Amino acid sequence: MARISIYDSTLRDGAQTQGISYSVEDKIKIVERLDALGVGYIEAGNPGSNPKDLEFFARAATLKLASARIIAFGATRKAGLRVAEDANVLSLLKAGTAAIAIFGKSWDYQVLEILRTTLDENLCMIGDTIRYLKQQRKEVVFDAEHFFDGYKDNLDYAMKTLAAAVDAGADCICLCDTNGGSFPDEIFDITREVRRRFDVTVGIHCHNDSEMAVANSIRAVQAGATQVQGTINGLGERCGNANLCSIIPNLQLKLGFECIPAEAMRHLTSVARSVSEIANMPHNEKAAYVGGHAFAHKGGMHIDAVVKNPISYEHINPDLVGNSRRVLMSEVAGRSTLLARINVVDPTLTKDSPEIRRIIDRLKELEHEGYQFEAAESSFDLVVRKMLGRYTPFFELVEFKVITNEPAVNDVNSSVIIKVRVGDQEVLTVAEGDGPVNALDKAARKALERLYPAIGEIRLTDYKVRVLDSDLASAAKVRVLIESSDGSENWTTIGVSTDIINASWQALVDSIEYKLLRDQERTQQAA
Amino acid sequence: MARISIYDSTLRDGAQTQGISYSVEDKIKIVERLDALGVGYIEAGNPGSNPKDLEFFARAATLKLASARIIAFGATRKAGLRVAEDANVLSLLKAGTAAIAIFGKSWDYQVLEILRTTLDENLCMIGDTIRYLKQQRKEVVFDAEHFFDGYKDNLDYAMKTLAAAVDAGADCICLCDTNGGSFPDEIFDITREVRRRFDVTVGIHCHNDSEMAVANSIRAVQAGATQVQGTINGLGERCGNANLCSIIPNLQLKLGFECIPAEAMRHLTSVARSVSEIANMPHNEKAAYVGGHAFAHKGGMHIDAVVKNPISYEHINPDLVGNSRRVLMSEVAGRSTLLARINVVDPTLTKDSPEIRRIIDRLKELEHEGYQFEAAESSFDLVVRKMLGRYTPFFELVEFKVITNEPAVNDVNSSVIIKVRVGDQEVLTVAEGDGPVNALDKAARKALERLYPAIGEIRLTDYKVRVLDSDLASAAKVRVLIESSDGSENWTTIGVSTDIINASWQALVDSIEYKLLRDQERTQQAA
Repeated sequence: MARISIYDSTLRDGAQTQGISYSVEDKIKIVERLDALGVGYIEAGNPGSNPKDLEFFARAATLKLASARIIAFGATRKAGLRVAEDANVLSLLKAGTAAIAIFGKSWDYQVLEILRTTLDENLCMIGDTIRYLKQQRKEVVFDAEHFFDGYKDNLDYAMKTLAAAVDAGADCICLCDTNGGSFPDEIFDITREVRRRFDVTVGIHCHNDSEMAVANSIRAVQAGATQVQGTINGLGERCGNANLCSIIPNLQLKLGFECIPAEAMRHLTSVARSVSEIANMPHNEKAAYVGGHAFAHKGGMHIDAVVKNPISYEHINPDLVGNSRRVLMSEVAGRSTLLARINVVDPTLTKDSPEIRRIIDRLKELEHEGYQFEAAESSFDLVVRKMLGRYTPFFELVEFKVITNEPAVNDVNSSVIIKVRVGDQEVLTVAEGDGPVNALDKAARKALERLYPAIGEIRLTDYKVRVLDSDLASAAKVRVLIESSDGSENWTTIGVSTDIINASWQALVDSIEYKLLRDQERTQQAA
Repeated sequence: MARISIYDSTLRDGAQTQGISYSVEDKIKIVERLDALGVGYIEAGNPGSNPKDLEFFARAATLKLASARIIAFGATRKAGLRVAEDANVLSLLKAGTAAIAIFGKSWDYQVLEILRTTLDENLCMIGDTIRYLKQQRKEVVFDAEHFFDGYKDNLDYAMKTLAAAVDAGADCICLCDTNGGSFPDEIFDITREVRRRFDVTVGIHCHNDSEMAVANSIRAVQAGATQVQGTINGLGERCGNANLCSIIPNLQLKLGFECIPAEAMRHLTSVARSVSEIANMPHNEKAAYVGGHAFAHKGGMHIDAVVKNPISYEHINPDLVGNSRRVLMSEVAGRSTLLARINVVDPTLTKDSPEIRRIIDRLKELEHEGYQFEAAESSFDLVVRKMLGRYTPFFELVEFKVITNEPAVNDVNSSVIIKVRVGDQEVLTVAEGDGPVNALDKAARKALERLYPAIGEIRLTDYKVRVLDSDLASAAKVRVLIESSDGSENWTTIGVSTDIINASWQALVDSIEYKLLRDQERTQQAA
């Protein structure tokens, strides 16, 4: 079975998506998810144009990755400069990755009009940069920008830019349809011609401006490309990059190529959803393979047929990509995945235990209300423990009152009065903060910290809010995700409500409960 | 130039989209928009399965359409029934359209397992139904359901179903990739073979389950299909139908086919947006050709190049499809790109005007504080107007106080007391709501609506929150984006603060100010 190397650019080209701005922590989480999925390369940043990326690369260097190589991405040296003096090239080396992607111009028009240099100097820029990086023992991918437009305009010159890269030792030449305007037949013919001329790995990098990026990538592979660049969920500027969530199953499940380990395929939907969550973008429910509607059946006739036999209206079995059919008996799908998680709490349960049925019913209820546990597994663990009777509450809320003033009074804009009950003790306390959620967080800690000093170790590391039903806007339900850390573990919890303060409170309570529970379990295990 | 007939199913297959339910009025509006766009056919309903559709067909019969023929859609007669006695077939005639589409099974497996009839009876069902409709002088399109899956499974039988349709007088045989699982090369080869065998119009009908419906439709045309079925915005069940908003410009602007009148092409974006509006679905801003981001540029290097020459990073001129270039307001955008936006407010300013320098400095300051104007251009316009002294505030906040109780008191969890000043008048009011932001929104409207009744037209359509510096979590800065609409225009505004209520307030104030300002400007222009 032919191997295709999957080259993910969710963190680099994907970061050009309107509205996306990843924190270093976000990037690390995405790297871990991509590595678990089994992609070959993770293009993670452009240290030359974004100095903050160096902090990420330093963190990334400490990760133990199973399959993926991290890639730093940048331009060839500038015209008229020696490569060893080019700040962008040097910052690529500072990133300390074993592999580097260099992009250069393949379209004569771009060289003359945009770079405003000579065609020969551009070839030297490509060759010098790659040769220099190869001397530093880097694996080098050459991204031939605008390759297809260049080929159609000036075939000879476009091919010369590839030759310059290959001669300098590039390990892969990747053909880019930068403007996304090419057609499947062109991509096929041109890729085949490149494969015929060069004895080196050929990659493909498509954009979706004509809504054909997936098909174009597939045709390139059918013409001999063996590296496919793209992003999770097709993130990327304008109409996005080629969507790996469609390309991977198209190639692996339909055409028999091997892109990721077979056993990783069923994580595809969950990886796609986590990336949406981390990027704080609404997940595209219409997405092929990984969308919530991809295997949902509405037409009565279709449902009849699907119940008779799924292949009637489903092109693949949704389990293969970790998605599920949405018809009458949808809880059947995914049961074994849930079981694995539930077995962590109680290893004696099997898929036929009545408890599993009750947990699945409850989960469906909660998902219907807007809870989504893919990105909040700690809250899910608490639900499971509560339903299995394996949970004794550490505390109970009696009431709180939040007061926010604009303008601030004596520099304080929010105060919270809170009363909690622990055993037969009631604690009444008050705290001030920067905004209501911060004041609530402080008040809860203050009320509980004397009885549970471990709460002092919790640091809230992220707080995300998403509106669920945007038609109702400010009165719509909101979903709050809170990420916490105590230095040794990170966990994420969820709250859903029409009231953002109530939703934040739910997530805050889950965060505190999870911490106390984990500490308790660790103490019991040690005993 | 070869003619391609565009066959729109936004009202029939598109109505299967999760969340869509059109009123008769909605359908009439969409028919008018599609006719103005110049499509050839509008498949508008299935009177057999939805009796309410007959009301629509009666209304539609009174419309004077310039280019489009309305199509009623339904199944072949049932097995074992005489066609003149089949209620579904009779209801197709009741629709009174000049053209009818009949779908029938082309996959032997479906005939035997789903219809549970014989292969011969299925051929008779197809032939009888079409012959009967041709006797009534109808134009008949035969939709060969599951044709590609059928062809791959049992080529002979799939071809026999087409022959049955052609022999009975079908005007067009349309090949359907019903499950959306086929690949561009298969579609090309199979369509070419059908064209070779039958001397009748061949159509193509694709679904997007492998994210290749557009490319598959294009390949079918390249193989000789001359009718293309699809929907506006790719509406349709599961992952949607083939997206006509991408197919039409791909065929007409890139491959030289004639799908719609040349002068109609620049209505494409507006038709796409109105269909989203009528269907009450958020418009896909990432959509090829017709999305708000399709020609939006963020990366600094790209922007420089696009300003030098648009073909650098644009596959077509956005004007051709009635879309426009957007340079995202970001500190990397650079001076010349900001100027274009600022010139809308004051056309006399040039890039050397001292005002431009001051605006850029202010923009950098604001971006440093966490404002991001690429998704909130209306707030940016207000900043520009304020800095140019072209803005007189409509109102001023004196103070507000938000009180939130958990648990709710008498079912109310949040109340807001607000005092605003308009001219020399102070308005003090109070409102209750579902959460603090909703209560604040209601209180602000209540305080201002008597003086500015136009505020009643504002609908908040989306509300997004993002934490900027996640290390500080609940005390971190949050960025709130509010999207508003008054039915004729949409605008997005921003607020940034450590306090989510304050950030929401800023965005809310900008939204109200922008609405009042636009109304004022329109009144002045009209005067």
